[in-house]
Amino acid sequence: MRVKIQASLNYHFYQPADVLLSLEAIRSQDQLIVSDQLIVTPPSALTRADGPELLGRRQWMRAHGDILLTYVAQVEVTRGPVNIAGLPETPRRELSYDVIRYLMPSRYCESDRLAPFAESRFSGAHGGDLVLNMAQWIHENITYTPGASNETTTAADTFMLRRGVCRDYAHMLISFARAMGVPARMVSAYAPALDPPDFHAVVEVWLSNAWHLIDPTRMASESNLVRIAAGRDATDISFMTIFGMAELRDQWVAVSVVAPEPLPT
Amino acid sequence: MRVKIQASLNYHFYQPADVLLSLEAIRSQDQLIVSDQLIVTPPSALTRADGPELLGRRQWMRAHGDILLTYVAQVEVTRGPVNIAGLPETPRRELSYDVIRYLMPSRYCESDRLAPFAESRFSGAHGGDLVLNMAQWIHENITYTPGASNETTTAADTFMLRRGVCRDYAHMLISFARAMGVPARMVSAYAPALDPPDFHAVVEVWLSNAWHLIDPTRMASESNLVRIAAGRDATDISFMTIFGMAELRDQWVAVSVVAPEPLPT
Amino acid sequence: MRVKIQASLNYHFYQPADVLLSLEAIRSQDQLIVSDQLIVTPPSALTRADGPELLGRRQWMRAHGDILLTYVAQVEVTRGPVNIAGLPETPRRELSYDVIRYLMPSRYCESDRLAPFAESRFSGAHGGDLVLNMAQWIHENITYTPGASNETTTAADTFMLRRGVCRDYAHMLISFARAMGVPARMVSAYAPALDPPDFHAVVEVWLSNAWHLIDPTRMASESNLVRIAAGRDATDISFMTIFGMAELRDQWVAVSVVAPEPLPT
Amino acid sequence: MRVKIQASLNYHFYQPADVLLSLEAIRSQDQLIVSDQLIVTPPSALTRADGPELLGRRQWMRAHGDILLTYVAQVEVTRGPVNIAGLPETPRRELSYDVIRYLMPSRYCESDRLAPFAESRFSGAHGGDLVLNMAQWIHENITYTPGASNETTTAADTFMLRRGVCRDYAHMLISFARAMGVPARMVSAYAPALDPPDFHAVVEVWLSNAWHLIDPTRMASESNLVRIAAGRDATDISFMTIFGMAELRDQWVAVSVVAPEPLPT
Repeated sequence: MRVKIQASLNYHFYQPADVLLSLEAIRSQDQLIVSDQLIVTPPSALTRADGPELLGRRQWMRAHGDILLTYVAQVEVTRGPVNIAGLPETPRRELSYDVIRYLMPSRYCESDRLAPFAESRFSGAHGGDLVLNMAQWIHENITYTPGASNETTTAADTFMLRRGVCRDYAHMLISFARAMGVPARMVSAYAPALDPPDFHAVVEVWLSNAWHLIDPTRMASESNLVRIAAGRDATDISFMTIFGMAELRDQWVAVSVVAPEPLPT
Repeated sequence: MRVKIQASLNYHFYQPADVLLSLEAIRSQDQLIVSDQLIVTPPSALTRADGPELLGRRQWMRAHGDILLTYVAQVEVTRGPVNIAGLPETPRRELSYDVIRYLMPSRYCESDRLAPFAESRFSGAHGGDLVLNMAQWIHENITYTPGASNETTTAADTFMLRRGVCRDYAHMLISFARAMGVPARMVSAYAPALDPPDFHAVVEVWLSNAWHLIDPTRMASESNLVRIAAGRDATDISFMTIFGMAELRDQWVAVSVVAPEPLPT
Repeated sequence: MRVKIQASLNYHFYQPADVLLSLEAIRSQDQLIVSDQLIVTPPSALTRADGPELLGRRQWMRAHGDILLTYVAQVEVTRGPVNIAGLPETPRRELSYDVIRYLMPSRYCESDRLAPFAESRFSGAHGGDLVLNMAQWIHENITYTPGASNETTTAADTFMLRRGVCRDYAHMLISFARAMGVPARMVSAYAPALDPPDFHAVVEVWLSNAWHLIDPTRMASESNLVRIAAGRDATDISFMTIFGMAELRDQWVAVSVVAPEPLPT
Repeated sequence: MRVKIQASLNYHFYQPADVLLSLEAIRSQDQLIVSDQLIVTPPSALTRADGPELLGRRQWMRAHGDILLTYVAQVEVTRGPVNIAGLPETPRRELSYDVIRYLMPSRYCESDRLAPFAESRFSGAHGGDLVLNMAQWIHENITYTPGASNETTTAADTFMLRRGVCRDYAHMLISFARAMGVPARMVSAYAPALDPPDFHAVVEVWLSNAWHLIDPTRMASESNLVRIAAGRDATDISFMTIFGMAELRDQWVAVSVVAPEPLPT
């Protein structure tokens, strides 16, 4: 399935600032980048800051004054429907450290603090069924409420607040999963048909020796998400990390499923 | 310089548990493993769980009942004296993501919360001199006090508590460094001449395109430390992560600088 | 019903310290002090520090070295069975400030943070029935676990931890009640038949223009509790507040229902 | 000195709500109410909710739709200049419980958590001099910054944030004072010559057997402040506590020192 993306961000930087951008789609087996481009206006040099490819592509920008950032892409998403029901957990002792790190508590996902609740509520099920039970609990107990949380809100806060946005839903599911021994990480994504259109955040859980997408907000379909970056929690996947002060003037995200088009020649 | 290590841990596991071990010395240019061995008694199979080699070697163990773990090693440490005075910072836009991740706040190192203080107290200096100023402030304002903190204590807690152990000293220096734009990470280590002998935790800061060791407790010498694992904070470098319940019965750490000996043939 | 109390505390004070004692039973309509005495060994002067009589009787002690404190009392408890089922709430605008203060969040009872959960879980019921629903939820979801919490644990912590002791049970019920508009406060008490015998902490809720006792641990009977002090949370009702350092060497609490005895003449 | 007050608040209540008002000046020896009136438009009944007179006068209001609240008063403030330099502390064992309660930590004043710093920084001085040292430290280390804090910010937060408004300055000084054994409480006030005019929050410390005003922001003069309410921290002295949802549309505070005028006959 072909997904067409345009994300535009207009910021004003009062002083020169370094900015780390995480806007480009990940290149991976389940999402082929047909074409993409990150455009800065006025034209400005970008410096690649990539780490492990599958955790996201990143670039440095030096910014001052009015900056318009535009990312346009066409991505062929081939992962098909995601169904984790019945998938077994990978035995813990078969996990390598690249996966183990997603078992540990992190700043916004205090899985250790939420473990007593998770154990009392979710014991019995395993693997994919366990994760689906957690997602169901979140669906029933958390209300999607823009403005109810902020960038310092943690999963433990959300557990009390019972409201939040995609970031908070993801932190909750990740925390529950880790508390019950399932490695889980956060993924930023472009999602077709989000209403209103926006950057999205979802979850990946490690089951049966692979990462599997799941959107605890149920606002997007895992089959047509385009992943941008993966990390322990919101700390790692911010689409812009600004070292300085800036003001967001305007933001526009358009993501849609399209018929494949011939590329410009 | 040749460092000889013996670390022995005697635990009782009431029920079978998976245990992730991070006890082995890192293999790197500045510390050559002459010989080492991780011995489990009663004999039990270990499974390697390594990630990136320079972040530490890890193994899985399945444990039940009384377990004696012993790590013995001889390591040739060649790094020589560490002197960061005068070292310049790497310009931020030259950092790759493998280093950038150590600029971000983490669970026990809330560099964002400590930034206002760091900026008001440490502005002016740069690079290695800046880090030495921070270490000096910690030396003057934090009192080494076993028992004053626990495994949930964060840098922000220590900033108020003014007491702590090596773990807390490291979290403070890491937080200050990140707050001022210097990538910093936590390193577990074997240190000769610690009194009392124990596992140790120190800091690495990224200056002049390389990691440099610094011990904010001033209890060990950076030149003869043997590094075990590196990570964002205490979460990543625990020498034993126990998935279950266990009781520490006894622990013995002996680390000393020795004359090189011929290896057994 | 006649309740006989003996509480003995043996402390060692390494240095001279001021100690605020809150050990004596409250004098009130529902509990008549037949006889009581607070004895310090070696003999030492006490200074009364009483505030409003119904919030508890307090005394200052100057302590150094080994101190044995003994409180002995016989109290006629006349309140009879407590049954709050069906009791109406007092309309808020009829509350005076002496009661209103127990509607506000306090340090260990973050009723504002727990309000979203309380509203989602307890809406519908009112007054005494509402409070009983909350107590039932606590009974079903919190496990009495000595050692699981400490003196800094708050109701929000307990909400996640799902374990605690009488202090934590009380903080939870108080927080839920305040969150739903029912004034609630914490009461220290001597309780017959506690197993093991100890100081106890329970709750009073304001319903139908009066305070009503309720023990969310269900370990004591409200009808034979002897109240010691009342306050917003654990901060206000500590049986000993020590301004300095001391070590508890021994503690013994015996509380029993007895046949009335003739007083010594 | 005659102080003339007008405070007007325009709120919109989307639904009927109970509102607890704490807007009227305290009647006390050092501030004589010459005349005052609390006016609700459209006209609406108020219900007195007073507690101890010296902690403030409070009223209940039932509100719906647009409400204009106006408090007008003339108050003769006779306390004269406040100078706490050299004032001795009251020996702890002479404190009654009405004062002792202001020695304890409270929700926004975590004096226990700030005690290590306070002890390391302020030891040596006593009584009024100690409090002045604390106020000086706050003056030098905290920057008055509207918008930097919010209604959940605690003294421990401000200690890290190094910025705040009158509420935060008061919480810091109260916490330091309590940590060092000086009872301290928070006082809401009308202050002439504030720029911009607003409700104000200051501190009272217990020295030499009496409460003494001190404004850690240094924006107002203690000699012409008109006290409204006193309590443990911001929890107790909010000028409006709204049980429901409302929107502040406009607020206007005018406080000035005037020549005494004959009262209307």
